[in-house]
Amino acid sequence: MIPYAGPIAALIAELAKLPGVGEKTASRLAFHILRAPRGDADALAHAILRVKDEIRLCGICFNVTDVDPCRICADPKRDPALICVVEEPPDLLAIERTREYRGRYHVLHGALNPIEGVGPEALRIRELLARLADGEAREVILATNPNVEGEATAIYLSKLLKPLGVTVSRIAHGVPMGGELEYADEATLARALEGRRAF
Amino acid sequence: MIPYAGPIAALIAELAKLPGVGEKTASRLAFHILRAPRGDADALAHAILRVKDEIRLCGICFNVTDVDPCRICADPKRDPALICVVEEPPDLLAIERTREYRGRYHVLHGALNPIEGVGPEALRIRELLARLADGEAREVILATNPNVEGEATAIYLSKLLKPLGVTVSRIAHGVPMGGELEYADEATLARALEGRRAF
Repeated sequence: MIPYAGPIAALIAELAKLPGVGEKTASRLAFHILRAPRGDADALAHAILRVKDEIRLCGICFNVTDVDPCRICADPKRDPALICVVEEPPDLLAIERTREYRGRYHVLHGALNPIEGVGPEALRIRELLARLADGEAREVILATNPNVEGEATAIYLSKLLKPLGVTVSRIAHGVPMGGELEYADEATLARALEGRRAF
Repeated sequence: MIPYAGPIAALIAELAKLPGVGEKTASRLAFHILRAPRGDADALAHAILRVKDEIRLCGICFNVTDVDPCRICADPKRDPALICVVEEPPDLLAIERTREYRGRYHVLHGALNPIEGVGPEALRIRELLARLADGEAREVILATNPNVEGEATAIYLSKLLKPLGVTVSRIAHGVPMGGELEYADEATLARALEGRRAF
């Protein structure tokens, strides 16, 4: 059997390292790149290198950024008294998309996960405590994911932050907008009842 | 709303151009690349550029190759009297994996598809006829896909090639190995009955 020519096999191997990309998908992508105009392949390769060259973490909030401090931390219109704690940069973007939040952020880069060996020291928790030391922040909103790891991280942080005299809040859990009660899972519905508010 | 930093947005946009990769998958892949070791990102970018630099089509069979003629066409142990016609390079590899075939190949780079505007002139059919001109090939095996376009292409080619005095054959259609008759579709089972052989 004659395998693929070296450069094709190499590209398939590299693509197969990406998350959710198996051997077959990698092969499909490789042949797409092979058939695509030279300019498209150059643009993709360049974008990969550029993201590694130019993207770093903001020294204040640890969001990914090409300027330090990042545009949010540098924006005087964003309220420094309010810090929203998220697990990862895409979570920050999800909150930005609501266009409702005018405070700042803190990106943990993960959630507590003892089974996978992720303890508090692996997250940007020490840096969060340092930010709170100057007393400028009045409220910390815990916007970690509503799953086991995110809840555990929120509980851990609330115990750590409350003694510092800062208000600690957690984003509301409840039925998602646009859904139907019939299809909501028990845990979500129980939280929605528990978190009911005067109408 | 603050969008992703320029280099991240650019990488997501480039990744989203790949087939089967939507905005969300592109974002997931971009953050994977951002977090991955520098060496992995370099290797991926390099592999993309290398495949464009080094891969061309074999001047005889039109398979993708880094040497011309390709290793199969240049192999004196491969029977030049037998040419297996496939649609795309991965089909060639699928046949190679059987380790049963010792002839040569011809890659059409597509199948007839009038709806999408793919006519005979868009495929490597003229080049196949040129290969047959020297009379070295005795049999052409049509191994296009067992779907509408592949069947149409096989029928078109058989009408074109038979008058040249070459044996034209089509790969067998039937029930796949390891399957169960109960779950075979009617079209496949009908072809399996029609193509029955003495046991």
